[in-house]
Amino acid sequence: MQNNSITDAMAIAAEAQKAAEFAQFTVNNLWILVAAAMVFMMHLGFATLEAGFVQRKNVVNILFKNSMIIAIGLLTYCLCGFNLMYPGFAEDSSGFFAFAGFGLTPPENGMTAEYADYTYWSDFIFQAMFAATGATIVSGAVAERIKLIPFLIFATIFVAISYPLTGSWKWGGGWLDAMGFYDFAGSTIVHSVGGWAALAGIILLGPRAGKYTKKGIRPIQGHSMPLAAIGVFLLFFGWFGFNGGSVLSADPELVSLVFTTTALAAAGGAVGAFFTSFVMFKNYDLSMVLNGILGGLVGITAGADIMSITDSIIIGIIAGIIIPISVTMFDKLKLDDPVGATSVHLMCGIWGTLAVAIFGDCDGCGTFGAQITGIVAMGAFSFLFAFIVFFILKVTLGIRVDEDEEEKGLDISEHEMAAYA
Amino acid sequence: MQNNSITDAMAIAAEAQKAAEFAQFTVNNLWILVAAAMVFMMHLGFATLEAGFVQRKNVVNILFKNSMIIAIGLLTYCLCGFNLMYPGFAEDSSGFFAFAGFGLTPPENGMTAEYADYTYWSDFIFQAMFAATGATIVSGAVAERIKLIPFLIFATIFVAISYPLTGSWKWGGGWLDAMGFYDFAGSTIVHSVGGWAALAGIILLGPRAGKYTKKGIRPIQGHSMPLAAIGVFLLFFGWFGFNGGSVLSADPELVSLVFTTTALAAAGGAVGAFFTSFVMFKNYDLSMVLNGILGGLVGITAGADIMSITDSIIIGIIAGIIIPISVTMFDKLKLDDPVGATSVHLMCGIWGTLAVAIFGDCDGCGTFGAQITGIVAMGAFSFLFAFIVFFILKVTLGIRVDEDEEEKGLDISEHEMAAYA
Amino acid sequence: MQNNSITDAMAIAAEAQKAAEFAQFTVNNLWILVAAAMVFMMHLGFATLEAGFVQRKNVVNILFKNSMIIAIGLLTYCLCGFNLMYPGFAEDSSGFFAFAGFGLTPPENGMTAEYADYTYWSDFIFQAMFAATGATIVSGAVAERIKLIPFLIFATIFVAISYPLTGSWKWGGGWLDAMGFYDFAGSTIVHSVGGWAALAGIILLGPRAGKYTKKGIRPIQGHSMPLAAIGVFLLFFGWFGFNGGSVLSADPELVSLVFTTTALAAAGGAVGAFFTSFVMFKNYDLSMVLNGILGGLVGITAGADIMSITDSIIIGIIAGIIIPISVTMFDKLKLDDPVGATSVHLMCGIWGTLAVAIFGDCDGCGTFGAQITGIVAMGAFSFLFAFIVFFILKVTLGIRVDEDEEEKGLDISEHEMAAYA
Repeated sequence: MQNNSITDAMAIAAEAQKAAEFAQFTVNNLWILVAAAMVFMMHLGFATLEAGFVQRKNVVNILFKNSMIIAIGLLTYCLCGFNLMYPGFAEDSSGFFAFAGFGLTPPENGMTAEYADYTYWSDFIFQAMFAATGATIVSGAVAERIKLIPFLIFATIFVAISYPLTGSWKWGGGWLDAMGFYDFAGSTIVHSVGGWAALAGIILLGPRAGKYTKKGIRPIQGHSMPLAAIGVFLLFFGWFGFNGGSVLSADPELVSLVFTTTALAAAGGAVGAFFTSFVMFKNYDLSMVLNGILGGLVGITAGADIMSITDSIIIGIIAGIIIPISVTMFDKLKLDDPVGATSVHLMCGIWGTLAVAIFGDCDGCGTFGAQITGIVAMGAFSFLFAFIVFFILKVTLGIRVDEDEEEKGLDISEHEMAAYA
Repeated sequence: MQNNSITDAMAIAAEAQKAAEFAQFTVNNLWILVAAAMVFMMHLGFATLEAGFVQRKNVVNILFKNSMIIAIGLLTYCLCGFNLMYPGFAEDSSGFFAFAGFGLTPPENGMTAEYADYTYWSDFIFQAMFAATGATIVSGAVAERIKLIPFLIFATIFVAISYPLTGSWKWGGGWLDAMGFYDFAGSTIVHSVGGWAALAGIILLGPRAGKYTKKGIRPIQGHSMPLAAIGVFLLFFGWFGFNGGSVLSADPELVSLVFTTTALAAAGGAVGAFFTSFVMFKNYDLSMVLNGILGGLVGITAGADIMSITDSIIIGIIAGIIIPISVTMFDKLKLDDPVGATSVHLMCGIWGTLAVAIFGDCDGCGTFGAQITGIVAMGAFSFLFAFIVFFILKVTLGIRVDEDEEEKGLDISEHEMAAYA
Repeated sequence: MQNNSITDAMAIAAEAQKAAEFAQFTVNNLWILVAAAMVFMMHLGFATLEAGFVQRKNVVNILFKNSMIIAIGLLTYCLCGFNLMYPGFAEDSSGFFAFAGFGLTPPENGMTAEYADYTYWSDFIFQAMFAATGATIVSGAVAERIKLIPFLIFATIFVAISYPLTGSWKWGGGWLDAMGFYDFAGSTIVHSVGGWAALAGIILLGPRAGKYTKKGIRPIQGHSMPLAAIGVFLLFFGWFGFNGGSVLSADPELVSLVFTTTALAAAGGAVGAFFTSFVMFKNYDLSMVLNGILGGLVGITAGADIMSITDSIIIGIIAGIIIPISVTMFDKLKLDDPVGATSVHLMCGIWGTLAVAIFGDCDGCGTFGAQITGIVAMGAFSFLFAFIVFFILKVTLGIRVDEDEEEKGLDISEHEMAAYA
């Protein structure tokens, strides 16, 4: 009878342990879902930022592209992206390419079988929200002159194949992961990868008409600073989910540290861009401060979980300094990027990935060698992939609208509609 | 002494069990609250969507209506709506009407007495955020020509009585619930119900001046596509709370499945509307894609918790196909709906409710018979209720502004104020 | 052996208890973080609200200020604000001033050592998001005529020193806390404090050119009502985090009650302002309804955790009534506040703090004496501090732009850029 009682007590205790673990599982899983919704909000951020930074005559077009990109991203990630990015590399594989098959494959015995902190569906939807980001970055950089359908074809192919493939090298447990490359939430895996693809598009498209004239560079101002500012604040908000959710659990210490480093790097980016643009241009340039905030956010992303407070602020400030210098440099190279996406995502993405090697402390990983290998390998692949796809589109469908269509604006020529009636 | 120790061990284990259950309760409750805040964001989505789709001269008016609707919704739900929608039908009642009394009635012995997963207050505030939605749907459909005060009177009566009464038939455990009608988060209970009321208003008001002329249909374009796009993205964001919160706990499998089906249906809606509107109109119509996203969201709402991935995408695509066809049809019928609310909420709400019978698998419930009964019963009641209220207002206060007021715009005639100075 | 088994059972039970406590800790901590992100969204709310309420020629300027304020707020709170606001007053101190040193000081043995419900970092980031609010309130009130750099210097000093110092008197456990002053989430500590600083700025700056003429008051309308409405809805959304997070845990009963009282007070504010402004001005004034919502939110903030439903609605309605009366009064006093910040944050902040003494029930605290002492002490300090800082800036750098710069607008004169191209 006593033994029974002891067995009873143990059973009650084991039951309680199980209940506690389920509560822990529930809160971890909930955070991944809330974070996914916050990352979704970044797509509104990108849409408004890009809409604000383009001319009035190309606003419908950019909104159309960004509305379709999120749809394309979700559907292709469902069709093949998720299984290409997390294929479960065989141990003896090179860790370069594997594919777990088309469609989604929830584990047989319950959705949560292989998942310690969240369900299969939470994993899918969180990662799917990331997937379209690469194409969104390109969208802004090639705005105001690219044809709609070729762009959507590019976006589909890039999001379906290139982004998940390079991503698998690290997040899927591939060769870059094996060699110690460190990229917490994707300074390289998401942001610079999108930036390289944007650069390929910019090169093949050429600058907007009238941007680089014999008399010098003619700034083409965005049509709505409120829209651009709304975009940056929404991106800042969403980044708490982007970086915070990348902890992949609601771990109190890590998630709260990540919130703090993320916010302080953004603040540093604003300050760095404020002072640098004042020194360079002798004025108070809102576009630079806005892109400085984004630069700081991109910069901290690779190491948001391993940085000290001081390091985060320094990383942000340097990212902020990079912005006006990079924007000026790209303009000197006649690489026309209406929204500054290459400066924000490519340059600050590289900076953030390198910053892990400088400031980070992650027990042997994130060495300069590993970081540079990751930056170069993913950059080279993404650039070449995007270049080839854009090139094929250029020689087949054409990628650039006619001169008079560009002059009239894409809203009328592609959509027969004005953004503002 | 040994017995004492065993008793001690059992007590400690029971304590742990209680602590685990409270943690589970806390996370479930937190999710309902976060979801309520996300549903609140949908009201900003509606406000900006409708503001974007109306003419520049009627923007203050639509913002005024939407600001007041959320206030009216919260206050009337507090006054009578909550107790009308969840009256606790007596077992021998017909399940058609019951009322638990005016004001809120938190359970006596602690707020959580009768609540397993969340508090009385969480229940109230989550449901209250839903309540105003019906009136918001009407707001857009009758925009640009309805008088302010009659509209606000209608909104108050509809939200206070009609919405909670029809809602009680299912969510309050009434007669439709008893017969197996299935509507997870409200394709019918919230969306088509609002759409029917909108239709009643449209019929009694007549179209905007100059919309249907002898020369044919004159499209009246919305004044700001960025506002409309912001609205749709915010609605998409909020829908994660609308559908995800309707699980009524943070259940990891269900909430994550609902997030996934919801997002994929929205993506399907965009694609469906994109292709259909291209085939029908030979252009890339941003309004259609935006409403396609909303159509997909409305369509998945009735069965978001019981659909497979493929089914969700198909439901979304079909909803997207419905949008341009329905918009065209309503225009042919000279039923003038400036924002497409009847196509999105009424047509796709019906579609989503039927889709449960086609795709859903919920153990005997959600049959065609039950679904059609629910659609027809709630639709008929809401339409008639709204028709009668609008009709009484028409013959007493009048519901339509004068011709010259419509010409000048409601902002000046009703508010003596322009949206843009 | 039996003893061993009993010991085993107890160990398992203790383990389960620990696991349950960690799950509870995780969900409490997560809510503070999500709430911090929601409070961040309020900064976008302020930015768009203020941008909407100013003239088209001063939009870049207000967006620039609000982008920098959040950065300044985060960085100064990190540098000194947090340790000034929560210095850990010595028992024998006066509780008026103490400082725990520059920089952040996470507890040595783990981040969570002294924290029962959330980590050190969660505490920091949640409080840091509040810190910039004071300066943001001032930003709107002094808009359209203040010089950029002097304003940013003021904002830095105010947020770094004045806000955390007065805050420490209550939230840091200082002398006002000891005497029973009650201010749950900051009707006084955040809102009226910002309002007093705004008043000092308004007095020293003088009204905008052309506002108060010999022929009477010339209303200067905001340039975009959609932006203003977006701002108010985002502030309403963020307030669920502002008030709900101030529970400092995910306590189900308290957080859900706070959500409910907060929402109903906002609704009451809309209704109160609607009727009062109709009686006073004989029209339906969107600005008044929007500020009425904000007034209701500010009003409930001091007692959101201790009010009944009826009290919340009454507090909101009275706040809504205050808005048009206060706006009219400030105009009669020729105190020119382009966005109504003093009416919303100062007047309704005082009202909400007093409402605790009228309606609240918090066991001996929140008496009229304590509330009035808190209002007066914090108000006097903030007003004088702000007045002195603005005065020094006025006699050194100057705080007001030239007449022709004001005429041209700050966007061109300070930023060489238009908000809308």
